[in-house]
Amino acid sequence: MRCVLVSKSLDLRGYLGAQFMRAAESIEIVNHPHEGPATDDIHLAVAWHPPDDAFERYPDLKAVCSIGAGVDNILACPSLRPEVDVIRVVDPAQAQMMSGFVAWHVIGHQRRFAAYQAQQREERWQRLGQRRAQDVPVGILGFGEIGRRVAADLALLGFPVMAWSRSAKPTPQGVRGFDGAAGLDAMLGQTEVLVNLLPLTPETRGILNRGTFARMYRGGYLIQVGRGEHLVEADLLAALESGQLAGAALDVFAAEPLAPRHPFWRHPRIVVTPHDACEVSVEAIGATFRATAEAIRAGRRPPHSIDRERGY
Amino acid sequence: MRCVLVSKSLDLRGYLGAQFMRAAESIEIVNHPHEGPATDDIHLAVAWHPPDDAFERYPDLKAVCSIGAGVDNILACPSLRPEVDVIRVVDPAQAQMMSGFVAWHVIGHQRRFAAYQAQQREERWQRLGQRRAQDVPVGILGFGEIGRRVAADLALLGFPVMAWSRSAKPTPQGVRGFDGAAGLDAMLGQTEVLVNLLPLTPETRGILNRGTFARMYRGGYLIQVGRGEHLVEADLLAALESGQLAGAALDVFAAEPLAPRHPFWRHPRIVVTPHDACEVSVEAIGATFRATAEAIRAGRRPPHSIDRERGY
Repeated sequence: MRCVLVSKSLDLRGYLGAQFMRAAESIEIVNHPHEGPATDDIHLAVAWHPPDDAFERYPDLKAVCSIGAGVDNILACPSLRPEVDVIRVVDPAQAQMMSGFVAWHVIGHQRRFAAYQAQQREERWQRLGQRRAQDVPVGILGFGEIGRRVAADLALLGFPVMAWSRSAKPTPQGVRGFDGAAGLDAMLGQTEVLVNLLPLTPETRGILNRGTFARMYRGGYLIQVGRGEHLVEADLLAALESGQLAGAALDVFAAEPLAPRHPFWRHPRIVVTPHDACEVSVEAIGATFRATAEAIRAGRRPPHSIDRERGY
Repeated sequence: MRCVLVSKSLDLRGYLGAQFMRAAESIEIVNHPHEGPATDDIHLAVAWHPPDDAFERYPDLKAVCSIGAGVDNILACPSLRPEVDVIRVVDPAQAQMMSGFVAWHVIGHQRRFAAYQAQQREERWQRLGQRRAQDVPVGILGFGEIGRRVAADLALLGFPVMAWSRSAKPTPQGVRGFDGAAGLDAMLGQTEVLVNLLPLTPETRGILNRGTFARMYRGGYLIQVGRGEHLVEADLLAALESGQLAGAALDVFAAEPLAPRHPFWRHPRIVVTPHDACEVSVEAIGATFRATAEAIRAGRRPPHSIDRERGY
């Protein structure tokens, strides 16, 4: 089977590496845009931020694999035909990385480590009073594979955990589930730390806005590990200014890398990380890719195909 | 029953508060040193850093309750007679607080949050490469109630966890146990992050020294939440200087508060907190105190009495 690598932002061949190429074995991989006329026998693409016209050249395309858990960058491509399956990577190790990243920020807020760090700079020895994990309710937006792991781990660490998804889902022990618009309001009203793990869809774009922050506990904290486009940046700055939010940890941004002199860089209550909360392993990408190729050969729908209408 | 509160460093009546005093109910509490001659009917003391001669005045004393998990400050009192039971407080909520504190530092080391913070100050967008929890082995010194909780939580977060105690103890799922001198060497040889939760005894004093650090993985990390006297301060500074240790989180110190201009305050790779990793709740102290009084009335040995010979 011939397969094409398509990206305007990454050298996918370099990113995936020799190991991935060896794993592809019998699959012939070509670069996009590739030379020559024979483009009608390509059934499978691996893509990340494909150029707008990327898929016009591949009339036989059956499926496009992402290289991450998110597929919004692929769905946004105008040349992606509706019948093409879009596959995201599911990587349990990625969920664990995300969980550790989120736990670090939740505990840091609970235990006031930023204030202790400021005290250390001043050589000041002063206990700040302790809040138990039980007293810091965490609300999670998005309850897929990653959200479930994040929720379960925070619950084990003693935090009251709530999780919201568009439609109702079963929740693990110690996690309260919410769904729909009313559920979102109900959860936010009991949330001190808000963790955003949503997929980016037209419905979720801009969901981290003034109204959302205003519903949370005063002095709350935002952990933004979804997509940059979920956040209305000016609303976050205003919520920090007013004290409605005590702080925020941002790992994703509408424009990456975050621009020089962007106000987030120097804000004393914003922690910036360079979209590094977690990444999927090349092994997991390879496994997804092989499973997709096998399914195409067998005429089955590939596993982890997303619901094109829902957008995730 | 009459009871005495004894401390040279704390106003115990104020520290324990009205709630505790009410809980004591039928127990008459007196301050130390108290007025009048009638000291021979006191069976129970609550103590924290008692003065050297504190217990001379109470010939009928049966038991001394600590107000924390540690009892070294009571055992060090020369006027404590060998037959007096010494009781420590066991508080599951305290174990959870400690576990969150330790997890924060372990994840912070794994995920290089200090380096990311430095990058943010320079407005630098650069991924530093990720290490999975599985690649960061943690060794825990001390495996009592608190150590068990810390070990279990770190294992759930994906870290390879080892725990050492003087004598062999059963370990929970995902935790490898070590004991004795040979076991300590074996564990240190596989340890990147060392967590000290030991009780302070003549055998453990100074255990965090050059030889201990040298046995660990190069570029290791120390989380010191035992007692200040466990650490040889000059050896820590030398290990950081040589790169044998990449950093250290210190919550306890031989002299507290940590002295102004102590080199730990300004060290770029030391995190100082003011002995605040966890504290026991007044509720837990009260419960221990009541259980001790009941046992004395009934002529039984109080629960959570320590082994005087072992020292914990």
